[in-house]
Amino acid sequence: MKLTILTTKYPLQSFGKFTRIHNNMLRTSTSASASPFSTPPTTNNINSISSITRRFKSSFVPAEPLTIHDLNEQTVKAQYAVRGKIPIIADGLSELIRKSPSSHGLPFTKIVNANIGNPQQLDQKPLTWYRQVLSILQYPELLNEDSGAKFPSDVKKRAQEILNNVGSIGAYSSSQGAAYFRQSIAEFITKRDGGEFASNANDIFLTSGASAAVSYLLQILSRDENSGFLIPIPQYPLYTATIALNNAKPVGYYLDESKGWATNPEEIRQLIKESADNGISIKALVVINPGNPTGAILSRDDIAELISISAEHGIVLIADEVYQENVFSGKFYSFKRILSELKEKNHALYKNVQLASLHSTSKGVSGECGQRGGYMELVGFKSDVKDIIFKLASINLCSVVSGQAMVELMVNPPKKGDESYDLYVKETSNIFENLKTRAKALYQAFSNMEDVSVDKPQGAMYLFPSLRFDPKVYHKLFSRAKNSDLEIDDLYCIELLENTGICCVPGNGFGQKPGTYHLRTTFLPPGEEWIQRWAKFHKDFVKKYKDTSV
Amino acid sequence: MKLTILTTKYPLQSFGKFTRIHNNMLRTSTSASASPFSTPPTTNNINSISSITRRFKSSFVPAEPLTIHDLNEQTVKAQYAVRGKIPIIADGLSELIRKSPSSHGLPFTKIVNANIGNPQQLDQKPLTWYRQVLSILQYPELLNEDSGAKFPSDVKKRAQEILNNVGSIGAYSSSQGAAYFRQSIAEFITKRDGGEFASNANDIFLTSGASAAVSYLLQILSRDENSGFLIPIPQYPLYTATIALNNAKPVGYYLDESKGWATNPEEIRQLIKESADNGISIKALVVINPGNPTGAILSRDDIAELISISAEHGIVLIADEVYQENVFSGKFYSFKRILSELKEKNHALYKNVQLASLHSTSKGVSGECGQRGGYMELVGFKSDVKDIIFKLASINLCSVVSGQAMVELMVNPPKKGDESYDLYVKETSNIFENLKTRAKALYQAFSNMEDVSVDKPQGAMYLFPSLRFDPKVYHKLFSRAKNSDLEIDDLYCIELLENTGICCVPGNGFGQKPGTYHLRTTFLPPGEEWIQRWAKFHKDFVKKYKDTSV
Repeated sequence: MKLTILTTKYPLQSFGKFTRIHNNMLRTSTSASASPFSTPPTTNNINSISSITRRFKSSFVPAEPLTIHDLNEQTVKAQYAVRGKIPIIADGLSELIRKSPSSHGLPFTKIVNANIGNPQQLDQKPLTWYRQVLSILQYPELLNEDSGAKFPSDVKKRAQEILNNVGSIGAYSSSQGAAYFRQSIAEFITKRDGGEFASNANDIFLTSGASAAVSYLLQILSRDENSGFLIPIPQYPLYTATIALNNAKPVGYYLDESKGWATNPEEIRQLIKESADNGISIKALVVINPGNPTGAILSRDDIAELISISAEHGIVLIADEVYQENVFSGKFYSFKRILSELKEKNHALYKNVQLASLHSTSKGVSGECGQRGGYMELVGFKSDVKDIIFKLASINLCSVVSGQAMVELMVNPPKKGDESYDLYVKETSNIFENLKTRAKALYQAFSNMEDVSVDKPQGAMYLFPSLRFDPKVYHKLFSRAKNSDLEIDDLYCIELLENTGICCVPGNGFGQKPGTYHLRTTFLPPGEEWIQRWAKFHKDFVKKYKDTSV
Repeated sequence: MKLTILTTKYPLQSFGKFTRIHNNMLRTSTSASASPFSTPPTTNNINSISSITRRFKSSFVPAEPLTIHDLNEQTVKAQYAVRGKIPIIADGLSELIRKSPSSHGLPFTKIVNANIGNPQQLDQKPLTWYRQVLSILQYPELLNEDSGAKFPSDVKKRAQEILNNVGSIGAYSSSQGAAYFRQSIAEFITKRDGGEFASNANDIFLTSGASAAVSYLLQILSRDENSGFLIPIPQYPLYTATIALNNAKPVGYYLDESKGWATNPEEIRQLIKESADNGISIKALVVINPGNPTGAILSRDDIAELISISAEHGIVLIADEVYQENVFSGKFYSFKRILSELKEKNHALYKNVQLASLHSTSKGVSGECGQRGGYMELVGFKSDVKDIIFKLASINLCSVVSGQAMVELMVNPPKKGDESYDLYVKETSNIFENLKTRAKALYQAFSNMEDVSVDKPQGAMYLFPSLRFDPKVYHKLFSRAKNSDLEIDDLYCIELLENTGICCVPGNGFGQKPGTYHLRTTFLPPGEEWIQRWAKFHKDFVKKYKDTSV
């Protein structure tokens, strides 16, 4: 432990045992009188306070409080659109409605939060299996017959197993996560990827959602301001925000909208070269699959190419796979699986690939965002590098243990024959089908809107339609947006919000090609009434800017 | 959003609607054939893999994996002793015992984890009130009569209230924490501080334990490498670790062991001056009260002086008050209360003081470490500075909502007349008395040890005895420790661990005056047998180094 101790170094002193001398000795110059704070203040002995304030009154000029100009610039610059300006306006409107339910003067009565994938805020019911086991973990007395509580036998059995192996969820676990849960996760990964390629519990880190994993990885990899991170454009803004906090460089690679938001490995190779020419050393390649905000799913081909790029250039692959269960068309292949296959065929070529793949309980059919469960699997990292990540996790002590248990329940659900099995299958299928239906309905609505282009939903929880107005409309929008220091997509989202209560996120929060304008909306809000409201708003919006001289 | 996009800027293109062309077009040079990944691989179509690996085989030389020299130096340098080298050895021994229960060859059968304040790992039972309400929040069906579960009426009422006001704990809350919980916390603070000084729910941030609060604060305040943070020596190593991660400067002020680890405000003033002379701008003054690892409690006098220092120099006061309920002798005064009193008497002088005070559900009589509940109150910060903290919290989405609920239950416990009240009082008093008894027993044991000095426990969960060997013993220990690249206190802790299974933390992990050697141990492990084992070890240790020529 090396501290910058600016005082004189003290020699080893001989200390009186158990002495507890009062601390006034060193302050005789300012306070020779008895301590004015020896008794607690009440309204009666308020004089005891005035004595100390008098003492200091003339002795210093109070300093001004900090302004944002005094702060770490990176923390000021970082942007996070998912909870940025549009959602903040929405919160304000929501508060207005709450305070004046009958006189707020708004043309709607409720904010529709389509800005964030937060299913349970939008009335998605939690899975019974998860919540039953977790209720027992919180209050193990529910296992006793006296409690009166009735639970399926497999629920009680699993809760008991977790309690036996992990202990109270009120205790800190290992900073990496409880070994018992890590073992379950390793078995899940092995099975998910076809059973041929074993995952190792030592490679698993339980994290607070997937965000904490991103934070650890980007932090250790940000060596200096010339450390670069390849991120997709559009991207989930957690990446740009975390890169900004680490004062590193985001290097965006475009997903190709004209090809269903496909990834172009050639462009990535080119960017690595151009970056090097510009003195930027690429540390990691971030891939979001299924895509957020695009919903696109990577092909096996593309995954293999991206892994090869990583192998050739020694850059870490960060595979954000939190939407791996949200797949409506096509098939999800994990990076871990394709890497294992490549290694099997040519170990020398791929043995050094460093892959971090992330998963979470917040998405999928779980939708347990508030429980902050998540994990990452680290493959191919040297053990002393993993130790650094372990240390970062240690400084945060551990991720919430109930969230760790939630991951266990996600990766190790009831099996055929278990008492909970039928209900579990019914609930998960319902949620899955429901999401698919909503995705389709929203897709249909956008497809029918004038001047909007949208891709068929493949995966994740979002649509990312683009606004394709004609040049005359663009021109008007551009002038109007510029006057308010906004982008065109900001303007659209604000008008949408103010007219319908629907809150979505402008494309500029995710990154988009210059001159293109998109929106990210979840398809989670229930019902179709809000979709119809959006369609009507859009029609009016286009009409307004086409026909009038606004 | 400003991205470093290194590719050519794309002009606005006209996109074909809903086209989904395959991504091979751009790669015709390397792969003109049909995609080798069009079908999932099985052991039968393994050839499909070899085709892609052949394609790349000669085209690149695989790079080496990262070493720690490639990483962010700050993340490599940061140290966190509470989960550092001694606990890591302990984990190894624990694993050995688990794997070879009958043949591990160790002189003990279990590790005694006295290194970390983790009460429920050491069999402290959670409070029934907390866990009953949380079980319902996890599985609200328990409120239905059909569930068969029996709960006290106030438990059901509170759970219902939380569900009505906050919704599912599976949904993300506001990044600052649910407004309903923040209101409860504000009322708790107001009442705790005597009822005269109102706390505002807008000033409260729910955090994942207190660690996340420290992380946010130190991050925004670390402007550059000349940003200094005044921290007590000894300190809780979260502070040095977080300062290191932010590449800022820790400036240690010594607590005075000869005066019961008292704080010396004059030394702090002097350090601020010396730092300025050395080009270091002090950004915050960290105070831990009750002290960790020292257990000392600050007087009203000292608190008022520290606040005045903060007022005069415009530096943020970070009051780590997580042990505010763990007070065995003396009285705890919150910084917020003394600041409010000072402001009342001289508003102009104290109005700009920026105070962040931290609390947690991990300590006190709650001991719910694994649930990651905590909050900070921010007083006197400009709103745009608070906005930056809000943004950092947003990037992490929100702290775990069950942990937030745990804070609510801690600050708003059952009231007299409530059905749960008697049991709550009984359980909390039992835990409190139990901790006090254990503290006393351990204190007694250290008092009786040869060459050890220890202070009577005032607060927190730790004793911080110092080793006071005679020069001959020190000399031998020094040579031996040096040979193994260890400090003397490391050596003591390792021998203690290897001989007794007791895991404590060497003083050098917290900082200590040069030439002094301490240990931090919790008094949480149950029973007294381990204490006797420690006493015997100590006797043997002293004898060994005194008598023999080891």
